[in-house]
Amino acid sequence: MTERRPTPAGVAAAAKRIAPYVTRTPLLPLEWQGKQVWVKAECLQQGGSFKLRGAFNRLVQLSEAERSRGVVAFSSGNHAQGVAIAARRLGIAATIVMPSDAPAVKRDSTLAAGAEIVAYDRATESREAIGARLAEEKGCVLVPSFDDVDVIEGQGSAGIEIAEQLGANPDHVLVPCGGGGLSAGLALALPGTRIVTVEPEGWDDMARSLEAGVPVPVREPPPATRCDALQTRLVSPLTLDALREAGAVGTSVTEAEIERAMAFAARHLRIVAEPGGAVALAALLAGKAGALSGRTVVVVSGGNVDPAAYADILARQATADRRG
Amino acid sequence: MTERRPTPAGVAAAAKRIAPYVTRTPLLPLEWQGKQVWVKAECLQQGGSFKLRGAFNRLVQLSEAERSRGVVAFSSGNHAQGVAIAARRLGIAATIVMPSDAPAVKRDSTLAAGAEIVAYDRATESREAIGARLAEEKGCVLVPSFDDVDVIEGQGSAGIEIAEQLGANPDHVLVPCGGGGLSAGLALALPGTRIVTVEPEGWDDMARSLEAGVPVPVREPPPATRCDALQTRLVSPLTLDALREAGAVGTSVTEAEIERAMAFAARHLRIVAEPGGAVALAALLAGKAGALSGRTVVVVSGGNVDPAAYADILARQATADRRG
Repeated sequence: MTERRPTPAGVAAAAKRIAPYVTRTPLLPLEWQGKQVWVKAECLQQGGSFKLRGAFNRLVQLSEAERSRGVVAFSSGNHAQGVAIAARRLGIAATIVMPSDAPAVKRDSTLAAGAEIVAYDRATESREAIGARLAEEKGCVLVPSFDDVDVIEGQGSAGIEIAEQLGANPDHVLVPCGGGGLSAGLALALPGTRIVTVEPEGWDDMARSLEAGVPVPVREPPPATRCDALQTRLVSPLTLDALREAGAVGTSVTEAEIERAMAFAARHLRIVAEPGGAVALAALLAGKAGALSGRTVVVVSGGNVDPAAYADILARQATADRRG
Repeated sequence: MTERRPTPAGVAAAAKRIAPYVTRTPLLPLEWQGKQVWVKAECLQQGGSFKLRGAFNRLVQLSEAERSRGVVAFSSGNHAQGVAIAARRLGIAATIVMPSDAPAVKRDSTLAAGAEIVAYDRATESREAIGARLAEEKGCVLVPSFDDVDVIEGQGSAGIEIAEQLGANPDHVLVPCGGGGLSAGLALALPGTRIVTVEPEGWDDMARSLEAGVPVPVREPPPATRCDALQTRLVSPLTLDALREAGAVGTSVTEAEIERAMAFAARHLRIVAEPGGAVALAALLAGKAGALSGRTVVVVSGGNVDPAAYADILARQATADRRG
């Protein structure tokens, strides 16, 4: 038996399956240097990121017996919130394994959604080991954040919406990339579209993997980044293969470019983008996504950012803009 | 001949007429004290506020001769952007009469949309007189910001969307109110819904007019407010009558409540609300909208706020919340 892989048909089915549960996020037109650009504002999704899509697509397909035993997920935040919200809506108990240094805004929201949190030390403990142990002890289902067919197909539902809202498949999609679940889902949802995965500088394992044709880890030690949502050290064959087959290319952006994009999103789109959610917009603004002809869609994938840090970034950008 | 008045049928026709031009803004679910609340995010409209709706509904109905002579509008900002954007899209020249102390973000965006700006001094000059003179000199059509049947019916299209997105008319709608164009349009679009107009404290001429049954001006001098979009001193019979007939009630909120709502919108909804756009959300959070049973929709009407002032407000609220 060959391993199951995510497919365009699977994405289409997922979109239909989860439509009653998720917000159809808007596709906002953006004027940018005379180009036809739209922003898919997934930061407006319930829980503040696209992660709800994959979580719902995984959880609604669990058997009654699986539902009764509960689910466990490891996540720095957005996947945690997605799983917590989906689980509560479906009456399933959720345990989240989260690094002790996760942003308070993400931790609080996960607790508010009714999940139990188990904290671990990013430097000394392995979240995978903890998550697997919990899954074994409690007999509950582990919901991976990207290395999972149902999760990838669920994230792809954002691409089905894009095509419907635009009335056609876009020519280019720029998408923030951590483990590649959203990027792979979009690649499957939008055949013929040029997919550009965007990562923070030094965390561009997807870009390097796409070039190499096999998963290549980040160069250790990777630099500090504000993008807590995109700190993935190694992509999965599932996401990489879907992107390779679609001919995706990868690029990366600096922390300064990311902060500029966050301020741009607030001012010109009136949306709150978290650092990791703003990297694709940053690539657009910095001209790092190659030549863009025709219709371009930029995904802003999340908006969960610590309020004080966010205020700080906006204040610095406002000062910089005034100085011109 | 009786004067033409805005009607539910007129709102329905407007919604259909302008649908190709405006963004169908999302209705975002909001968890709030166990109540069923949704936020209609008109800050995500093109130009950053609902004003595009009324502007388009007025402008697309102009004759070829009228279009060729251009349009003029007086506005502190959001109406200006709405008219400027609609005019450009329709190939019509637009002149905007704007106070010299209008927020730079609104002035810049109006210029960027290709309109000509004529500045005036709020303290010593009358924008109405300037606008009327320009209209006469150039022979162009004056587009009022709220005292106009087509404009009111255009704004009401947001209510048609709310009903479609919710699958029913909500029980309550909380709406920011300046001159009352949006509020009146929603009252006409949503029969049977309890409409609550929300104004900044000291600028509650609509609340007082609804109580008195006739237009009552603000008490002079009104206090300072950050809500540049809601500084209307006297509502119009057109908007007041529509709201009276719907049994609308008015309430008001403090500047502190408004700033808290702006921070709440950024953190929990991931949208940027300008002060005037956040007053209805402020009324919800402060418990100033009366008893809310059933389904409540809160309109966030605009998101054009000076970036430095916005960063400031978010920073102060983040500090207050940490201490809280």
